[in-house]
Amino acid sequence: MKTILIINGPNLNLLGTREPNIYGALTLEEINRRIAREAEALGARVEFFQSSHEGALIDRLHAAANTVHGVVFNAGAYTHTSVALADAISATGHRVIEVHLSNVFKREEFRWHSFLSSVCQGVICGLGWKSYVLALRALLMEDDQE
Amino acid sequence: MKTILIINGPNLNLLGTREPNIYGALTLEEINRRIAREAEALGARVEFFQSSHEGALIDRLHAAANTVHGVVFNAGAYTHTSVALADAISATGHRVIEVHLSNVFKREEFRWHSFLSSVCQGVICGLGWKSYVLALRALLMEDDQE
Amino acid sequence: MKTILIINGPNLNLLGTREPNIYGALTLEEINRRIAREAEALGARVEFFQSSHEGALIDRLHAAANTVHGVVFNAGAYTHTSVALADAISATGHRVIEVHLSNVFKREEFRWHSFLSSVCQGVICGLGWKSYVLALRALLMEDDQE
Amino acid sequence: MKTILIINGPNLNLLGTREPNIYGALTLEEINRRIAREAEALGARVEFFQSSHEGALIDRLHAAANTVHGVVFNAGAYTHTSVALADAISATGHRVIEVHLSNVFKREEFRWHSFLSSVCQGVICGLGWKSYVLALRALLMEDDQE
Amino acid sequence: MKTILIINGPNLNLLGTREPNIYGALTLEEINRRIAREAEALGARVEFFQSSHEGALIDRLHAAANTVHGVVFNAGAYTHTSVALADAISATGHRVIEVHLSNVFKREEFRWHSFLSSVCQGVICGLGWKSYVLALRALLMEDDQE
Amino acid sequence: MKTILIINGPNLNLLGTREPNIYGALTLEEINRRIAREAEALGARVEFFQSSHEGALIDRLHAAANTVHGVVFNAGAYTHTSVALADAISATGHRVIEVHLSNVFKREEFRWHSFLSSVCQGVICGLGWKSYVLALRALLMEDDQE
Amino acid sequence: MKTILIINGPNLNLLGTREPNIYGALTLEEINRRIAREAEALGARVEFFQSSHEGALIDRLHAAANTVHGVVFNAGAYTHTSVALADAISATGHRVIEVHLSNVFKREEFRWHSFLSSVCQGVICGLGWKSYVLALRALLMEDDQE
Amino acid sequence: MKTILIINGPNLNLLGTREPNIYGALTLEEINRRIAREAEALGARVEFFQSSHEGALIDRLHAAANTVHGVVFNAGAYTHTSVALADAISATGHRVIEVHLSNVFKREEFRWHSFLSSVCQGVICGLGWKSYVLALRALLMEDDQE
Amino acid sequence: MKTILIINGPNLNLLGTREPNIYGALTLEEINRRIAREAEALGARVEFFQSSHEGALIDRLHAAANTVHGVVFNAGAYTHTSVALADAISATGHRVIEVHLSNVFKREEFRWHSFLSSVCQGVICGLGWKSYVLALRALLMEDDQE
Amino acid sequence: MKTILIINGPNLNLLGTREPNIYGALTLEEINRRIAREAEALGARVEFFQSSHEGALIDRLHAAANTVHGVVFNAGAYTHTSVALADAISATGHRVIEVHLSNVFKREEFRWHSFLSSVCQGVICGLGWKSYVLALRALLMEDDQE
Amino acid sequence: MKTILIINGPNLNLLGTREPNIYGALTLEEINRRIAREAEALGARVEFFQSSHEGALIDRLHAAANTVHGVVFNAGAYTHTSVALADAISATGHRVIEVHLSNVFKREEFRWHSFLSSVCQGVICGLGWKSYVLALRALLMEDDQE
Amino acid sequence: MKTILIINGPNLNLLGTREPNIYGALTLEEINRRIAREAEALGARVEFFQSSHEGALIDRLHAAANTVHGVVFNAGAYTHTSVALADAISATGHRVIEVHLSNVFKREEFRWHSFLSSVCQGVICGLGWKSYVLALRALLMEDDQE
Repeated sequence: MKTILIINGPNLNLLGTREPNIYGALTLEEINRRIAREAEALGARVEFFQSSHEGALIDRLHAAANTVHGVVFNAGAYTHTSVALADAISATGHRVIEVHLSNVFKREEFRWHSFLSSVCQGVICGLGWKSYVLALRALLMEDDQE
Repeated sequence: MKTILIINGPNLNLLGTREPNIYGALTLEEINRRIAREAEALGARVEFFQSSHEGALIDRLHAAANTVHGVVFNAGAYTHTSVALADAISATGHRVIEVHLSNVFKREEFRWHSFLSSVCQGVICGLGWKSYVLALRALLMEDDQE
Repeated sequence: MKTILIINGPNLNLLGTREPNIYGALTLEEINRRIAREAEALGARVEFFQSSHEGALIDRLHAAANTVHGVVFNAGAYTHTSVALADAISATGHRVIEVHLSNVFKREEFRWHSFLSSVCQGVICGLGWKSYVLALRALLMEDDQE
Repeated sequence: MKTILIINGPNLNLLGTREPNIYGALTLEEINRRIAREAEALGARVEFFQSSHEGALIDRLHAAANTVHGVVFNAGAYTHTSVALADAISATGHRVIEVHLSNVFKREEFRWHSFLSSVCQGVICGLGWKSYVLALRALLMEDDQE
Repeated sequence: MKTILIINGPNLNLLGTREPNIYGALTLEEINRRIAREAEALGARVEFFQSSHEGALIDRLHAAANTVHGVVFNAGAYTHTSVALADAISATGHRVIEVHLSNVFKREEFRWHSFLSSVCQGVICGLGWKSYVLALRALLMEDDQE
Repeated sequence: MKTILIINGPNLNLLGTREPNIYGALTLEEINRRIAREAEALGARVEFFQSSHEGALIDRLHAAANTVHGVVFNAGAYTHTSVALADAISATGHRVIEVHLSNVFKREEFRWHSFLSSVCQGVICGLGWKSYVLALRALLMEDDQE
Repeated sequence: MKTILIINGPNLNLLGTREPNIYGALTLEEINRRIAREAEALGARVEFFQSSHEGALIDRLHAAANTVHGVVFNAGAYTHTSVALADAISATGHRVIEVHLSNVFKREEFRWHSFLSSVCQGVICGLGWKSYVLALRALLMEDDQE
Repeated sequence: MKTILIINGPNLNLLGTREPNIYGALTLEEINRRIAREAEALGARVEFFQSSHEGALIDRLHAAANTVHGVVFNAGAYTHTSVALADAISATGHRVIEVHLSNVFKREEFRWHSFLSSVCQGVICGLGWKSYVLALRALLMEDDQE
Repeated sequence: MKTILIINGPNLNLLGTREPNIYGALTLEEINRRIAREAEALGARVEFFQSSHEGALIDRLHAAANTVHGVVFNAGAYTHTSVALADAISATGHRVIEVHLSNVFKREEFRWHSFLSSVCQGVICGLGWKSYVLALRALLMEDDQE
Repeated sequence: MKTILIINGPNLNLLGTREPNIYGALTLEEINRRIAREAEALGARVEFFQSSHEGALIDRLHAAANTVHGVVFNAGAYTHTSVALADAISATGHRVIEVHLSNVFKREEFRWHSFLSSVCQGVICGLGWKSYVLALRALLMEDDQE
Repeated sequence: MKTILIINGPNLNLLGTREPNIYGALTLEEINRRIAREAEALGARVEFFQSSHEGALIDRLHAAANTVHGVVFNAGAYTHTSVALADAISATGHRVIEVHLSNVFKREEFRWHSFLSSVCQGVICGLGWKSYVLALRALLMEDDQE
Repeated sequence: MKTILIINGPNLNLLGTREPNIYGALTLEEINRRIAREAEALGARVEFFQSSHEGALIDRLHAAANTVHGVVFNAGAYTHTSVALADAISATGHRVIEVHLSNVFKREEFRWHSFLSSVCQGVICGLGWKSYVLALRALLMEDDQE
């Protein structure tokens, strides 16, 4: 059974309580429940991790090396400022899909650039909680199909 | 029954025959077959359109106004140069998901900017033919869930 | 009797049906009627052309060389991206007034630059349908007065 | 009877005496006469003001608040450098049309940017003295037509 | 008894009458009254000066050299465009605190840069009329405490 | 009784021991004492927090949500690099005044930009320990006066 | 017998009739005659194509895949704006030499950048009709010599 | 007898009293005396004008049109911000030499650009009061020698 | 006996296990052994610290103030993004040599800029594990020789 | 008999011995032989000069003034950095064709700009040794044909 | 008797023979004669040096260290590209006045920046041969006057 | 016995006589003596070369091809401006370590960029004469250790 790691970065623990016009009204727990339900349907296992500490996110990626099939990663604001997270993805060799709840390209210009995108397999953004579920599904679709 | 329009822009008719290292080995027809199969499974109808003419893509978006539930749009190179296509999306009010086969953020810097992203609902890139299938699925998922 | 050619570029065929807050509530046909009425009052003839195809707009400018007194040109989104249209104006030697319905300087920064302005006689923008009528009038005012 | 204020900025008092290749051969007085004649024909009153002092132009805009129907404003070189004039337009809420005798987009690149355009209703440039007359007409055309 | 000079630049004479969403609903006179009251409480004298003329602001700074303890300066739009005012501060050696009613960093990008900040002692912005009162207080707090 | 949270970011624990020419000779403890004394005089309570960990600062802002009246925040170097802290301010909805001991506009150009300013209520900088005290006072002044 | 495809882009159909100071006095037909004569001398066959439609140029490149030995391509204004044409060259794998009649580096700065150059074999510009003839010759010179 | 107009811009009235490390210890009056002495030696007449008002400097240039042989112009800070002064020089056709006391290229980067240089005959900077005297001499040297 | 602190930043704990083409095949432990051996030969003591937490690196620099002779610092990705680490070096007054295993100037452009270099004594990069050993040696060479 | 001067700049003396993947396997002598053979066939004389000294290249251009019919110039790396060579071309009035062995537009971005192109008649690049031969031919083709 | 060294850089040996519209019709020898005459009148000695070799200009500056009173330096094109010449001026401590015949600010934008200006005492440009004569005079005027 | 070539670029012959605050008080001869002593200790041979001529530096690199084990190269100011020297390093295939006496990152911004770094093995800067000695040592350390 494949394991997918779902990582959420800074401030995403506050989901659903503030700024619902940007991030939607679901809490992180509710989103995680939907992800877990989808994983179950697809016969996979999911692990969840959230932290607002850049170093903790790096450590979590290191710890998961060689133990998970893929990573769904919403790095929040660190997406735009962290070279260290990008290096952690490269160094661990994880198969990562970058996700965002909001469509970052509709927001401030400094959110248009991601240090992570070029070391991820792909990017899904703007689809709310569905961004996570679709990324999970993408990581679990048969590779030989591609 | 909902209809989803799948639009492909310039040069995508050559898929599978050239540069498989960038775009994969599937032809556009083979990708379309997989999309059609997924649509059938989800109980939706799909229409396909491909053109290398910017004007023809605009005209097709106009023609589809009020007749389709959503659009999966891979505008190819026009993604990076066409304000007119972005205006066509705004003007028609289509619910569009921008897709790319390759991860544009691993390629030349001029491919990092999209004129379309800010007028689309979301973006999915880097996942090969799965980008299309997941976009289709996103457009058909229940809105009330969001 | 002098002939003035009125050219409208991409998406302007949708005028009046979408985004009235930006472009006003008049359809292109209604605007054209007002232009025609003004032309009649000023003793001139008008021809109308609209296309979302850059190449078709170029071809139309070529075809009009030496046959019209002037051109009122709203190139829409191509204003900001088309060197080819600017070259068509230079190459044909048309006396062109660039017009826009909206005040482009109140909108996204990429709309502040026009490839056409430097090869046109002048620019009128932000005055809605009146932009066209005033451009028509400008082209027909006695040259010796200037 | 509606009153339109015609404001001219720095150096425009020298019109007709220098650089006729850029600004035309008419003096400011001759242009004003043509504007006055047009206003009379349209049943409106015009007031004229010219100064090379940025502060004086601001004070004049303040003084006219709530007393004029609209302003035709050629701010000359201050167009490209004055945030204070733009703020004066915003703060007074005047309905302003920015005009230029020459086509600024054919000139030095620093003339392509206007601090005023985004707070004006519209812009007319490159049409010589006709720029003023057309702006006057635009301000006096029936609003309900728009 | 220490004297503090309160200088307000272009358009600030219109405070309270226009754009209250940006600048608040108080008139300049009302703000000045609050400043005067605070000065009285702190045992200091205040002088007020407002002008929309850059040159007049410079002349006022010159005239105050060696006669005032400090200056509270809201240069309005000249903040972003006037090297001459910055030079006047340097040349006179005034102890100046730059103030703004609004938080300039929430507004247009051209308002993020101030030519004055680097020659002032400090900056207070975004606190409405309190920006002035706090600046006054800062200038009057005992230096030996610092 | 209102509570104000005073947060200091990286390296500010070293205040008073190094680089007094930039930051003054007071230690953080001495500054805090002055803030506490002022709070007492104004009838308010203060809490202090300092950390050089970006994540810890974010967590502290989260923990304070709905429990404090306002925040005086000197984010030190993170001011210029942390989108995550800005998002934490937005997400928690805190009323924050950004403060700096030194006048950042007299220092290296990379210190002129703050990711925080646009999500704070205001900014006070360059006034040494008085920056904190004035920010505290601003947060406690009656809102109805504004 | 090798076939070389000669493609001319927008506005080049007007050659010889306008702006001879930039493009020379020869018509496109006269240039083509000279190319044909040279091809004959070199024992090769030439095909000619001109269009002002970006999409038509792309389609023509597609149609020629695997049927021509090389392409001499003057993309006119599209040189500077078309990523789609560059992709068409990459996707078809044509051996292309980019040519220009005028020396683009003596003209406006936006003509200094070509999206095509990096996917072409080489570039020849500034030599008038000779640019074409030399490109033809280059494509036909023995490869083993290189 | 030729007349040379010596114009000094903002803050230069304070010369000799402040910042002698940048501008030298001479007052403007002392510099003017040296210029007058040199003019006398060269058989010419000089007029002096100083103002910190941009508009007054423009008006003075207008007033001198056709009445002076040349202008020695130290525009101070307006050098770097005033398009209007540059236009005044162009419009009046004055033969102007731009001078600076300090070497502007040793100072802040925003002082490296002058809007005036391109419309002046030449520039002399960094030579203190000698900059003026040499500019005067340059304007009076026989033209036929050049 | 002098003590040198060797600090390694984010992801450097993974050395030797991933991307050996960039960072070499040695593990951090093996590198540290070589550094320790060199220190022993030079009669010095070394301490080692590695963390992927920016705050922990700052805290470690603070803790070492006044206790070590110098610091060899490979800040990894934080080199390019951390103003806070640069401030920590300035604030503690450490004598630091910045080192990198790889030649950062052969890599992505965002790695060419270091916030640390200007507050370090020197930089050694591109020499693999030898970068550390040489930095250690530099810190221990007699100062009077310099 | 016309003489053509063939100038090669820095490092081109090493051709054929290093980096054949960029510059081809021919030595400069072999290329020169092919040029000489072509010149003979076209009834012209060639002179060759190579130096890695910018000054020597300038002196050679000076020495050739009025003695050669044209110059084929591969300035190597000086292409991108030497204003002095561009001035030498302008000052001597030589008819120069700029050539490059490699397609500079496929290489590092700093090679995309040439200081020479705008003062040369034309540019030929990317065609290996054929670049030289075609440039020679272009210089010798009848001018009246153009 | 004071000695002034007059140095001319690349291409200036061609003065008077080419491009008289930019540089005037005098040869370098004629300019030197005028300089010599002026030096004689002022009781000074002059030495002349011209080279198109950057290295030779540096060597000449080195050789003159401690032997000349000042240097009049027209570095021609090296003005805009040579850090090495600027370093040579700094390293030798020469008192240098940078001169140009033409007004560089009326020419191409790349001529607006000088690497030399910030290490020279002053700059004189745009005054033809008089630039040299005035620079000579400036270097010889009594220092105590300044 | 391995030979290491030590190359010094422009102005470095003046070391020790000028600007000791930047470059230290040692002359180039004294530095070379220390390098020679170190080389002797390490059992290697050193050759020294210094020139202020870019071309001479290139020629020296060419001459050393295949005859030296490595190069320690301080290119001085040419570091920041010379593409030709970078090409010489690439073309000769030398193993080069770039060195600087001063920490270039503490100096003017134009010294932060090196054209050489990306073609060198590594960079050592800011360590005075020790930069050379450490580079020598690095080149001579056993490769198999790495």
